[in-house]
Amino acid sequence: MVSSSGTPSASPASVGAKRYELVTLGDELLLGLTANGHLTFLGAQLGRRGVLLDRNVTITDDADAIARQFRESWARADVVITTGGLGPTCDDRTREVIANVLGQKLVFDPAIEKAMEERFAAFGRKMTPNNLKQAYRFERGEVIPNPNGTAPGLWVQQDGKVLCMLPGPPNELQPMFVDQVLPRLAKLGLLLEREAYVQFRTAGIGESALETRLQPIFDRHGEALSVAFCAHQGQVDCRVSSPGGQLSYAQLEGIAAECAVVLGEDFMGYGHDSLAKICADLLRGQEKKIAVVETATGGLLAGAFTEVCGACKFFAGGVVCCSNDAKMQLLDVPECLLLQHGAVSAEAAVAMATGAAETLGADYALAVTGFAGASEGAGNANRVGSIFIALHAPHGVWSKKLSYPGPRSTVKVRAVNAALDWLRRELRRAEAGISLSDRRTGVMQ
Amino acid sequence: MVSSSGTPSASPASVGAKRYELVTLGDELLLGLTANGHLTFLGAQLGRRGVLLDRNVTITDDADAIARQFRESWARADVVITTGGLGPTCDDRTREVIANVLGQKLVFDPAIEKAMEERFAAFGRKMTPNNLKQAYRFERGEVIPNPNGTAPGLWVQQDGKVLCMLPGPPNELQPMFVDQVLPRLAKLGLLLEREAYVQFRTAGIGESALETRLQPIFDRHGEALSVAFCAHQGQVDCRVSSPGGQLSYAQLEGIAAECAVVLGEDFMGYGHDSLAKICADLLRGQEKKIAVVETATGGLLAGAFTEVCGACKFFAGGVVCCSNDAKMQLLDVPECLLLQHGAVSAEAAVAMATGAAETLGADYALAVTGFAGASEGAGNANRVGSIFIALHAPHGVWSKKLSYPGPRSTVKVRAVNAALDWLRRELRRAEAGISLSDRRTGVMQ
Repeated sequence: MVSSSGTPSASPASVGAKRYELVTLGDELLLGLTANGHLTFLGAQLGRRGVLLDRNVTITDDADAIARQFRESWARADVVITTGGLGPTCDDRTREVIANVLGQKLVFDPAIEKAMEERFAAFGRKMTPNNLKQAYRFERGEVIPNPNGTAPGLWVQQDGKVLCMLPGPPNELQPMFVDQVLPRLAKLGLLLEREAYVQFRTAGIGESALETRLQPIFDRHGEALSVAFCAHQGQVDCRVSSPGGQLSYAQLEGIAAECAVVLGEDFMGYGHDSLAKICADLLRGQEKKIAVVETATGGLLAGAFTEVCGACKFFAGGVVCCSNDAKMQLLDVPECLLLQHGAVSAEAAVAMATGAAETLGADYALAVTGFAGASEGAGNANRVGSIFIALHAPHGVWSKKLSYPGPRSTVKVRAVNAALDWLRRELRRAEAGISLSDRRTGVMQ
Repeated sequence: MVSSSGTPSASPASVGAKRYELVTLGDELLLGLTANGHLTFLGAQLGRRGVLLDRNVTITDDADAIARQFRESWARADVVITTGGLGPTCDDRTREVIANVLGQKLVFDPAIEKAMEERFAAFGRKMTPNNLKQAYRFERGEVIPNPNGTAPGLWVQQDGKVLCMLPGPPNELQPMFVDQVLPRLAKLGLLLEREAYVQFRTAGIGESALETRLQPIFDRHGEALSVAFCAHQGQVDCRVSSPGGQLSYAQLEGIAAECAVVLGEDFMGYGHDSLAKICADLLRGQEKKIAVVETATGGLLAGAFTEVCGACKFFAGGVVCCSNDAKMQLLDVPECLLLQHGAVSAEAAVAMATGAAETLGADYALAVTGFAGASEGAGNANRVGSIFIALHAPHGVWSKKLSYPGPRSTVKVRAVNAALDWLRRELRRAEAGISLSDRRTGVMQ
């Protein structure tokens, strides 16, 4: 372990000046067979601690390519993180190649062998000889234990720089990084001890409208405050930070709280919670249940709720159906209504929501019906991208028409987010005890 | 346009020797806010035409970083593809920076301005002055029209190399690359005119078992044949190619056909079709419908079917529910059965599948129930990762117990794939007219 006596004190400015490079190994990434989830995960983790990755380089598993890239990255960066290439197969020459560039030897570490043997024994399996390759570490380096797999991570401090080699499987890499690597890097002053920014999420308001409303608050802090927006499918996240360190974390929290007041219902919450998670917390708090019925979004809305831990407590169930088919009748949607107005109509959405709430015994229900993409019979006035959503609440039922441009997958996510955001607002009002007569929402049935 | 008179002839070997680099721009990628979908898409597209990307580099939007990286990539590669940085905001300096490295000037192109004006007019909007930035191209370069957005792509041939700059939005980049960039690269002999490999997909068989069964076929072709496997969640794809060009495409197709015969039911199909798509085609061919009911997978199974174009033709609907709740009764699952055996049991799965088929008027039904992750009441013998699936078919109903290690998201995908694969096999047998008595599948009710 690095001695804590010489710990440099980390500031947003000192951390921001550090150059981090992430080297991700694997032909499967370059062939588009798997997405580069390591970049998404590690980039977000480092971002929270005040580090913007300088570069991510993805290269093939070829030994020459690894040597060339590592030499280059090691020369440029303060911290180099590699992922993958620590497995037991003969292709995995990453350790050897990098040791060579560092001018280090690999040494056999009996402690790693022992940990691996214990792991194999725990699963009732015998360790094969090729696994012993994973028991080598750099002669002047450390081992980062891997509680979720055989290959440990490797850690080297040399030339005033840090090398951190992580195993490829995400369920091994992710806890190792959070539990062991982040604290090590913080100890060396290479990232902040705590979050670098205060994030809050908004929904139902565009990025420029958001900026306009919040600008007076931001203006009071001048250059001490840095603000970043990130828009995604009906939500905009806002991060306030102080890269120069003039504002404390408590002050940043105060600024975010001011924004929350100004934004009112458009303010979703602090942190990284999803719309479904926020709805779930409100539902649990009010001891209510939600049901869903969806055509165009094909299970995505139900999936958003069931992703939340302990969904059974608030999720009464979902029905996924196509237009005009049997499930509509399952939900007591009258066939004559579908024939008269069409399955993609305000009337159908309202009947679906009410039917779902009643059939599934829920207090609230969301219905989504529409044409998310082509080839779904969107020949008439209801163009592709036209969606009707309906919300059934204990005190009434409403519907809204939405219209989104863009590809099918985008339309689906936008529709789900719009439905979730509507529910969120309704639940907030219910929590605040705002009575029905105070509202002016959509078309009431 | 490049003259076709000097077209070099492309072979797998000549194409494989070309160095391609992809430079993806954007802080949002390095902060993990969005996944690098451009790498996944472009890597796969190039891979199909015999190119393994040499490197993908993701850098910040900073002008110095772009200049440094582009200089380096341009020196190393035969083809450099960039994504992003072509937008109208003042941050987007990519064009200028790269023109500077290439020693070229940017020139205003009235044809681009006209195309942009027409596009804005078509949407009933007025073009703002900052958009004019997008009307500049390299003085010795070409414009790649963008039918789906304002910023055209840019194309430069210089120093015996190719630079191709693509706009960031996927719905603009993807059709532009397929329709316009691939043909240009093929014309220059920088990638193959047709697919470089024959791919077939398998399901329900592990990678090493697959290799063992197919090795005798592969051995007959020695070094002329290259075989690559890619395993993902219960499926293994196999790609056969001839990097040296000794085997023709027709010969590769013949080898894949031999593999199909040897593999029997484990063979899913040629190409890139998903399990759900293959099931959909079989269902449509037999004029049958499928219904689903799921607890642990929370809408993922319904989503797999509704992703397929024209799902209404074969998808009778889905129910997403939690254990023991009202929807079980909606599907006529007797409460006493749930109390006696538990909702995560073979008996419950069978009753759910039958209930779904009957209630939703379907010929086939799949049920998935289980514990995909922690905190779902997996306290008893049915550990986390234990899933029961059931298949209802016109001639009977069966259930199977599955057990998967790994994180919740993996367990869910594995369970969905196992269910889909079971349906696929059953539909194949029905198509082949194999009678019920010939089968030995699972536990029959």
